[in-house]
Amino acid sequence: MEFLVRSENRMPPETPPEVRERIRTAERVRALELREAGILKRLWRVPGRTATIGLYEAPDATALHDALASLPAAPWLDVTVEALATHPQERS
Amino acid sequence: MEFLVRSENRMPPETPPEVRERIRTAERVRALELREAGILKRLWRVPGRTATIGLYEAPDATALHDALASLPAAPWLDVTVEALATHPQERS
Amino acid sequence: MEFLVRSENRMPPETPPEVRERIRTAERVRALELREAGILKRLWRVPGRTATIGLYEAPDATALHDALASLPAAPWLDVTVEALATHPQERS
Amino acid sequence: MEFLVRSENRMPPETPPEVRERIRTAERVRALELREAGILKRLWRVPGRTATIGLYEAPDATALHDALASLPAAPWLDVTVEALATHPQERS
Amino acid sequence: MEFLVRSENRMPPETPPEVRERIRTAERVRALELREAGILKRLWRVPGRTATIGLYEAPDATALHDALASLPAAPWLDVTVEALATHPQERS
Amino acid sequence: MEFLVRSENRMPPETPPEVRERIRTAERVRALELREAGILKRLWRVPGRTATIGLYEAPDATALHDALASLPAAPWLDVTVEALATHPQERS
Amino acid sequence: MEFLVRSENRMPPETPPEVRERIRTAERVRALELREAGILKRLWRVPGRTATIGLYEAPDATALHDALASLPAAPWLDVTVEALATHPQERS
Amino acid sequence: MEFLVRSENRMPPETPPEVRERIRTAERVRALELREAGILKRLWRVPGRTATIGLYEAPDATALHDALASLPAAPWLDVTVEALATHPQERS
Amino acid sequence: MEFLVRSENRMPPETPPEVRERIRTAERVRALELREAGILKRLWRVPGRTATIGLYEAPDATALHDALASLPAAPWLDVTVEALATHPQERS
Amino acid sequence: MEFLVRSENRMPPETPPEVRERIRTAERVRALELREAGILKRLWRVPGRTATIGLYEAPDATALHDALASLPAAPWLDVTVEALATHPQERS
Repeated sequence: MEFLVRSENRMPPETPPEVRERIRTAERVRALELREAGILKRLWRVPGRTATIGLYEAPDATALHDALASLPAAPWLDVTVEALATHPQERS
Repeated sequence: MEFLVRSENRMPPETPPEVRERIRTAERVRALELREAGILKRLWRVPGRTATIGLYEAPDATALHDALASLPAAPWLDVTVEALATHPQERS
Repeated sequence: MEFLVRSENRMPPETPPEVRERIRTAERVRALELREAGILKRLWRVPGRTATIGLYEAPDATALHDALASLPAAPWLDVTVEALATHPQERS
Repeated sequence: MEFLVRSENRMPPETPPEVRERIRTAERVRALELREAGILKRLWRVPGRTATIGLYEAPDATALHDALASLPAAPWLDVTVEALATHPQERS
Repeated sequence: MEFLVRSENRMPPETPPEVRERIRTAERVRALELREAGILKRLWRVPGRTATIGLYEAPDATALHDALASLPAAPWLDVTVEALATHPQERS
Repeated sequence: MEFLVRSENRMPPETPPEVRERIRTAERVRALELREAGILKRLWRVPGRTATIGLYEAPDATALHDALASLPAAPWLDVTVEALATHPQERS
Repeated sequence: MEFLVRSENRMPPETPPEVRERIRTAERVRALELREAGILKRLWRVPGRTATIGLYEAPDATALHDALASLPAAPWLDVTVEALATHPQERS
Repeated sequence: MEFLVRSENRMPPETPPEVRERIRTAERVRALELREAGILKRLWRVPGRTATIGLYEAPDATALHDALASLPAAPWLDVTVEALATHPQERS
Repeated sequence: MEFLVRSENRMPPETPPEVRERIRTAERVRALELREAGILKRLWRVPGRTATIGLYEAPDATALHDALASLPAAPWLDVTVEALATHPQERS
Repeated sequence: MEFLVRSENRMPPETPPEVRERIRTAERVRALELREAGILKRLWRVPGRTATIGLYEAPDATALHDALASLPAAPWLDVTVEALATHPQERS
């Protein structure tokens, strides 16, 4: 099942660059793992913001939550999830 | 997987009583079928409104959509769906 | 460039079934053309609603508008468009 | 009488892990007591968030407030309560 | 238990005066009954609007819903209910 | 003239208990004075929140503001005021 | 006591011009009376809208409501009222 | 002085094509006049909507209102106006 | 041209009294100058809040911005400006 | 392709003046570069706020994001972007 996930990064601007960089690197590593596991399918940047829109696939909302909670930046992310149904045009 | 479903009935007040009654009866029949199928688990009324909050269980959002679209009142319902994850306290 | 397009169908419930069916069929034909042209890339149904979320690709917002305005259901659709930037993780 | 209770945890990300852990443990103990008392009937996690949706039963809003205020995390919770009426389909 | 009830009257302006008058009279009669039953305790008008704010007392949200649904103007009312807890200053 | 006053207490959770207690005690004393002066007529707690809804009576909005500003917790309160008109059913 | 009154005119565009004109004329007459009575003190147009912002003075919200309800266009107006307190800079 | 003007066209989808066309043609003529008068400086289409964003220049909000009210589609437009100040970077 | 200016003071409650007092005094001085210059015409307090509603007159939004930015409390104010058009009833 | 960019500066009021000044100067320099590159076409100030509205031109949302992220004040800016389509009146 697919989910649309909107995520705003609320890390304060005064966070030291090295902390910010460390989390960003770890985030990238974990995101790659989620991609390889087929959970994270697409990721876009919302222009002008430290925010992303992602297309995720997971068996259910619980598995999705576990994936999102495993992201190193999770404590600073304001996340909203929208369940997606398959459109008849894409059922085959 | 469980979903919280909020549903506002937008049928206009000037709908003839017999139309209203016919749809309500059919709605009740279909809701009973969804209960017996284990899809509709709980249903509450929002006090003061022709609105309900329902707890549904379905394999995914597509199956949920099909169940909701099968309700006779569906054309008049303004529905919002919220995916629910299992809380650690309830995982056993 | 990609766009996320949210579309609510406001066609009134009392629309005659044959009108509704005629537009739905034409909509499906046009959507297929937009898919073949590479403009409509993915389409989801918002569970419980006559609403969709679509992933579109178009050279710019003007081309996107022309594509959306060409949909037979366009007069009844309440559409919001969100411009998407490529995420660094997907730049290669 | 049943209530739907939405609760966002606003504890800041920089809270020391041991404080966070201590409150989480105490929260779990208290929640279990509320379950045994028949006040907390179901609890879900909102996917992607440190937020929950709970189904509570209490004689009235005052008793509900006392139960919610007894949670160790209460000072950090942003809680909204919705009173639920029994749906005719569930009256027996 | 007390409830704060906000009610907007959505009856269209072009409703014939005699219909409007008939419903208003019936509404007044029913409101008086609810007062005598101790369910409707106070009623205010929102200045400038065909809207009211009422203080109701009922055993629970189901009884409140039944009282509100018994109002002759109910089909045109857009009602929101807020559960009220007793404040410590008023517990004695 | 009556006013409906909604008040959210924004005092941060990390406020030292003795400060919190001192202000709560002073608040209670001042609220009692406002009751005796006939300004504060009813006070409810919004369940689950450090928020109240109050029914006040004052000659005008200026006198109401002075009363609200005299509360010891005023600097932390986020207050919204709604002017209430007498409903015809209560004019005698 | 002064009030800030925001008023949106919801009269449908297809209202016959002569009906519209008749109401506008009557509205103007009544507004002039309210000015002469010292109730309507200032009136602005919200640019681009059939909406106004008015500064009213009335003994209380009940008197204000009676004044607003006496406007011939009242059935089509969506009105919101904001109670104003005298600013210390203007108390003399 | 410049203004940013957002305008949603609420003309119902069932408006006869010849009415719609007549108004669109007249709208275009009037818009051209406003351009030549230096009042309408830029006009964009909001993608996916029958909505526009315009950059206007007028001596004040009253003159702007008169310009907007002179548009043949004005009765169907839902318009919001935002006053713009010159940015220091553009003051010369 | 007139403007309606809504201003919320976001100065944190823990600001030292002498800082708060110093700014308030300077604010009063500057406000008086703006009154004498005919820019600030009326000022109201929003009851229950550290917020004001002001009626300003300025040649355009740039002059208004300069006036508002000259207020000593400006760094803490959350200001929204609404352009006002003269109502036909007040054109003479 | 053009974009409308709304930007609120959330730099806290207690930021030291020299930090604020340094960033403002750098911001001005970078904005000038973006103007010369044809990316920033117009910039307005929202009256009363430390906010701007800008008209940008960029090949796509990714290029726009890179331009916005290059602004020295970016970490403190709350930015929203709206894609603009060319209006038929301006197509030539």
